[in-house]
Amino acid sequence: MPREITAFSNPLIKRVRNLREKRHRREEGLFIAEGLRILAEAEEAGRLPRWIFYTAEMRTHPLVLRLAAACESDGGEAIETNVDILHKLSGKDNPQTVLGVYAEFDTSLDHVDRSASDIWIVAQALRDPGNLGTILRTGDAVGAGGLILVDDCVDPFSVEAVRASMGALFTQRIAHATWLDFVRWLRSGPGELVALSLRTDTDYRQPRYAAPTFLLVGNEARGLPADYEDECDLRVKLPMCGKADSLNAAVATAVMAYQVLGQRL
Amino acid sequence: MPREITAFSNPLIKRVRNLREKRHRREEGLFIAEGLRILAEAEEAGRLPRWIFYTAEMRTHPLVLRLAAACESDGGEAIETNVDILHKLSGKDNPQTVLGVYAEFDTSLDHVDRSASDIWIVAQALRDPGNLGTILRTGDAVGAGGLILVDDCVDPFSVEAVRASMGALFTQRIAHATWLDFVRWLRSGPGELVALSLRTDTDYRQPRYAAPTFLLVGNEARGLPADYEDECDLRVKLPMCGKADSLNAAVATAVMAYQVLGQRL
Repeated sequence: MPREITAFSNPLIKRVRNLREKRHRREEGLFIAEGLRILAEAEEAGRLPRWIFYTAEMRTHPLVLRLAAACESDGGEAIETNVDILHKLSGKDNPQTVLGVYAEFDTSLDHVDRSASDIWIVAQALRDPGNLGTILRTGDAVGAGGLILVDDCVDPFSVEAVRASMGALFTQRIAHATWLDFVRWLRSGPGELVALSLRTDTDYRQPRYAAPTFLLVGNEARGLPADYEDECDLRVKLPMCGKADSLNAAVATAVMAYQVLGQRL
Repeated sequence: MPREITAFSNPLIKRVRNLREKRHRREEGLFIAEGLRILAEAEEAGRLPRWIFYTAEMRTHPLVLRLAAACESDGGEAIETNVDILHKLSGKDNPQTVLGVYAEFDTSLDHVDRSASDIWIVAQALRDPGNLGTILRTGDAVGAGGLILVDDCVDPFSVEAVRASMGALFTQRIAHATWLDFVRWLRSGPGELVALSLRTDTDYRQPRYAAPTFLLVGNEARGLPADYEDECDLRVKLPMCGKADSLNAAVATAVMAYQVLGQRL
């Protein structure tokens, strides 16, 4: 049976609300995901929430019933609440009617099995949570294995990143490493490291990419450091026909990822 | 000589701040663009601000000096202010140190010259300002002529859309029309209308696209209405290899646009 919480002052509400801040996420090892579709995606990927919150109207929804039951038999707790509380938890004006609190994943490189996919995305110093989530979503679409975050990237467990990932946070492996640790790990097995670069004349449609391909994309404003590009096996660029001479980082990643996928299909 | 404004209560500050709301933008026919790079892009495209705001530290920057002079000889006004005021105007915690207020453009279809480019992007009921700005930026990168907004789309002059466009708002033609008016206009001249669809088996790499290509992308959540797709000359889809079976609208548009561009290069 679900517990009912409608008081803003409830300690659990305060605790979950705090998960919108990175500091509290790290302390608790927990994060928030919103929306029935995404919670169902998580369940399919074998992830159940510690807490599932939903409005009274959703109480009889078959998927909510199933998720709540699965959550409770996994030791979690189902909580019936209202839109005002969900608004407080998510920070959105029109909050989703279902919200889950999940344990953060292990993001060490040791858990990445590169043989699981032919395409991996590597992002360096990515700063925008929307870009991070969008890249995860693209990774899912092209059948990538996951996203490896290098250096100081935005937190993949932030509410905005999880939201933009549309559930792909649960289907993509996520790892975090320093550049040196990443390169050491990469060179310990097969894999072609391909930089999306502005400092090259090689059009991205020229090479035949070797599997597994690791697509490396840099910071939104600065791109990749020159010595990181030097470490790559290939440097390619997208044609730029306009005046602004720039592309959104998630867009450039997607165009590249679809190019690699196209060679494999 | 620039006027100096440092009082939050100044009527012009209030007026510009209000431009963050669509209602006021429509009333005034004005919008905000931030950042020196974007203002320079605008100037190159022949657009000068009615007002240019900058901090005292930027007073001697050669580009600011040039833009301020050009603005004033065009009948506009240069205004020296501080970061707190710029924060108030832009709504950003770390505001750009330069901000311009521009007259909105004419967005009628009559002003679109389809012969100006081989690629045009058409978005239907697009709701996210970040997606709209990102699509404009992609349009610039692929050398598209512009973006035609169909039905009830988010405002391209919103602060978030202008910001995400990274200046491409000034390099891309923007039009707004109902679906019926757009189709009537389209069929009055050459052009292949291509829908990004989930209801087709045609892979986007199969067709040879005829110029000018009009790429039609639908609403983020619902995609395109079936009768809109029926009107199209071609319906194509991107391969989806993942579990979430979805792509960000701006990402899907970019992958398609680069496919068309690749055939032309």
